[in-house]
Amino acid sequence: MPLPAALLARLREIFPDDALATTDDDRRAAARDNSRHEHLPDAVVFPTSHAQVEALVRACRAHGVPLTARGGGTSSTGASVPVAGGVVANFMRMNRILRIAPDDRLAMVEPGVTNEALQKALAPLGFFWAPDPGSAPWCTVGGNLACNAAGPHAVKYGATRDNVLGLAAVAGTGESFRCGTQTSKSAIGYDLTRLLIGSEGTLAVITEATLKLTPRPAALRSLRASYRDAASAAHAVARIMAQPATPCALEFMDALALRLAREHQPEAGVPEAEALLLIELDGAPDALEEACAAVEAAARVDGLVQLEVARDEAQTRALWAARKALSFAQQAVTQHKINEDVVVPVSRLPALVDNVRALAEKHAVPIVSFGHAGNGNLHVNFLPRDVDEIERAYAALPELFERVIALGGTISGEHGIGVVKREFMPLALSGATLGLMRGIKAAFDPDGILNPGKLLP
Amino acid sequence: MPLPAALLARLREIFPDDALATTDDDRRAAARDNSRHEHLPDAVVFPTSHAQVEALVRACRAHGVPLTARGGGTSSTGASVPVAGGVVANFMRMNRILRIAPDDRLAMVEPGVTNEALQKALAPLGFFWAPDPGSAPWCTVGGNLACNAAGPHAVKYGATRDNVLGLAAVAGTGESFRCGTQTSKSAIGYDLTRLLIGSEGTLAVITEATLKLTPRPAALRSLRASYRDAASAAHAVARIMAQPATPCALEFMDALALRLAREHQPEAGVPEAEALLLIELDGAPDALEEACAAVEAAARVDGLVQLEVARDEAQTRALWAARKALSFAQQAVTQHKINEDVVVPVSRLPALVDNVRALAEKHAVPIVSFGHAGNGNLHVNFLPRDVDEIERAYAALPELFERVIALGGTISGEHGIGVVKREFMPLALSGATLGLMRGIKAAFDPDGILNPGKLLP
Repeated sequence: MPLPAALLARLREIFPDDALATTDDDRRAAARDNSRHEHLPDAVVFPTSHAQVEALVRACRAHGVPLTARGGGTSSTGASVPVAGGVVANFMRMNRILRIAPDDRLAMVEPGVTNEALQKALAPLGFFWAPDPGSAPWCTVGGNLACNAAGPHAVKYGATRDNVLGLAAVAGTGESFRCGTQTSKSAIGYDLTRLLIGSEGTLAVITEATLKLTPRPAALRSLRASYRDAASAAHAVARIMAQPATPCALEFMDALALRLAREHQPEAGVPEAEALLLIELDGAPDALEEACAAVEAAARVDGLVQLEVARDEAQTRALWAARKALSFAQQAVTQHKINEDVVVPVSRLPALVDNVRALAEKHAVPIVSFGHAGNGNLHVNFLPRDVDEIERAYAALPELFERVIALGGTISGEHGIGVVKREFMPLALSGATLGLMRGIKAAFDPDGILNPGKLLP
Repeated sequence: MPLPAALLARLREIFPDDALATTDDDRRAAARDNSRHEHLPDAVVFPTSHAQVEALVRACRAHGVPLTARGGGTSSTGASVPVAGGVVANFMRMNRILRIAPDDRLAMVEPGVTNEALQKALAPLGFFWAPDPGSAPWCTVGGNLACNAAGPHAVKYGATRDNVLGLAAVAGTGESFRCGTQTSKSAIGYDLTRLLIGSEGTLAVITEATLKLTPRPAALRSLRASYRDAASAAHAVARIMAQPATPCALEFMDALALRLAREHQPEAGVPEAEALLLIELDGAPDALEEACAAVEAAARVDGLVQLEVARDEAQTRALWAARKALSFAQQAVTQHKINEDVVVPVSRLPALVDNVRALAEKHAVPIVSFGHAGNGNLHVNFLPRDVDEIERAYAALPELFERVIALGGTISGEHGIGVVKREFMPLALSGATLGLMRGIKAAFDPDGILNPGKLLP
């Protein structure tokens, strides 16, 4: 369905020729993200200013045409796929770092800057921005905001929502607004900033963000601990999290993850164990020594097979090789990986691992579990190798979510909802909670033009 | 205006005799908080269960009668004063600690538990809850949630909003709902948890909270640095905040604060200086030594007069005596203190202190500035001693807020808005931002029964 001619004419007024694209190739490039979903938009625009975005939202609203904002397109939930067609706003050209203020521990950026470009600009000043998704070289800060992205360092430094001070945005009404502050503390009304973060572009289009920065610690230290079973490793995780020396990464790999990594990359020295913890600590040198001792003590539970501490960069790389090998190993098993992202209270990790193993057996499909154990956030990846296994994997998904919720957890830790988990939202949230979310949606975007078909069932 | 008879009859069904009060004495006890505002409610109830709260909200809604939730009544903004009459729900009897789970770093509590009672329950388990307002012995967790309370430790550990995982509540519609999770990470839809925190009871009545706990560091160390002017002290603050060893408290006192403390308590050994920083560090012993050296180095700027490090508990008490003396000193000056709470980016602290001094001269009223410098959050207290000074102080207030906003700051760091700052909200927030907040209010509380007359102008 092509755009109304009047809207197209208006878009030509708002955007220069090279910032409005309607060819099949252009539309195809904006039709996909890192999920299995795909839908062609009718036009793609490349905003470079807040004024353009405001005019764009107003034009789309006037014509009742869907508008989907897009960054690097790395979402694995279909959050940036324009499932209802309409206009895609690709923010990759609106990518300036407007200001870095070390004294105030903040940076002001446009949404299209990549996470990695921002980190590179901050590093020489001795700072970083905490969210560190694996897609950092390609994903944008705007995408991180939309999905409340995180990564390994969230265990110590929090997710995106914990690391933003304020935003400028255009609501679905077409109204521009600012929320939050440039200060590290405030108590002035409803927290619209954190409401927009994780709202997947369904409430407003963000045009500027004031990010909270963290000073870079002086040094890093890596530990690797292998265990005879997942329960022992999970017990160690709970002990590590119950003492004050919080690691800056606390990652878990299950038996299948270790076997795949070992088979795929025999030279990586992946230990023969049933469960592995990869632990990173940061701090000043003496503090690091002390924290390392405390974490080592906490990690030494019954069931520990081996504990190694890296003493230099080469040893550090070697310890993390297992984790790095895993991504490629999964790809070698199948091109049909179903990438899940569930989270439980840390104390329920052993039960989660048991449940996943039971699911894999019941549905006869390989499942690998690994990820951010310090947050209780595991990537439970189904690895179906043929059509039958794919069918069985999808049949197992609702059961996984039900088990996670029964354990006091929830259905997404950091990937978000998008299209792929939308139908499962009623498992995690009551009708009353979803009703309040719909009320908020109606207040921000009364005509439902922003990223329709996402998040809310 | 007495309550409708039918509502009173319904309240008698919901609450036992000893949990419903309508005498003048009972009503007077619920008419005030720690502000200068006062208004009698028509009835006071003392809920002890979620079911009672749900029935209460529904009954008030059915009769269009205002409902104001109340904890310890320590708000300085009138947030818990029932300015439109109606029913006050006093939560002091709904005060159970339901569960403490150290492995999961969380505690589940009812809203009426005091901050101090919670901290006392957590301490033997090696944990604390970060918000540490000065009113901790009397204020409730529910009140902390309502106002997004903080305190000195927020500079390292965040405010209330940063330390809550999930809530149970009853919206103004009368519908019960849960939001958030029991996990330290989640990405499942709009963040209703942080939306309720700081909403001052205008959206929903909270009946249960899942709080994020922090492990207690092994040791503390205090430093005190005096400076020849406020600009030097503020420069030191910015330098301290730009390095990785974040203090757990970084407090400032201006020249008048120091003079008052010295005069009121000559034996406290308050230094003769124009500005003072009180710094607290926490951590494991070796880490503390290292952090102390780093902070000391950052604090040594041009203008430093003296830097002292406490080596034992007696020395620590002595260093903090100036801060303790100040509260009483202010009371000795006047009973008419106007307690302000503004916040600017840390780099603008010198300008804020200059502006406050200029205001004090222009309006000929004493103003003392002190507080949480690491967050740029100063308590700017007007100390008018007679009717003329009181009048001039109130005349100076809008000018203070305008200057703070011109410096990139905002009008409340941790006390909130309530009645006293409601009219100033348009200085801090645009009409569009306030309009979106009103849309959220309408979605949660369509009849406007919850704490009317607060927060939104």
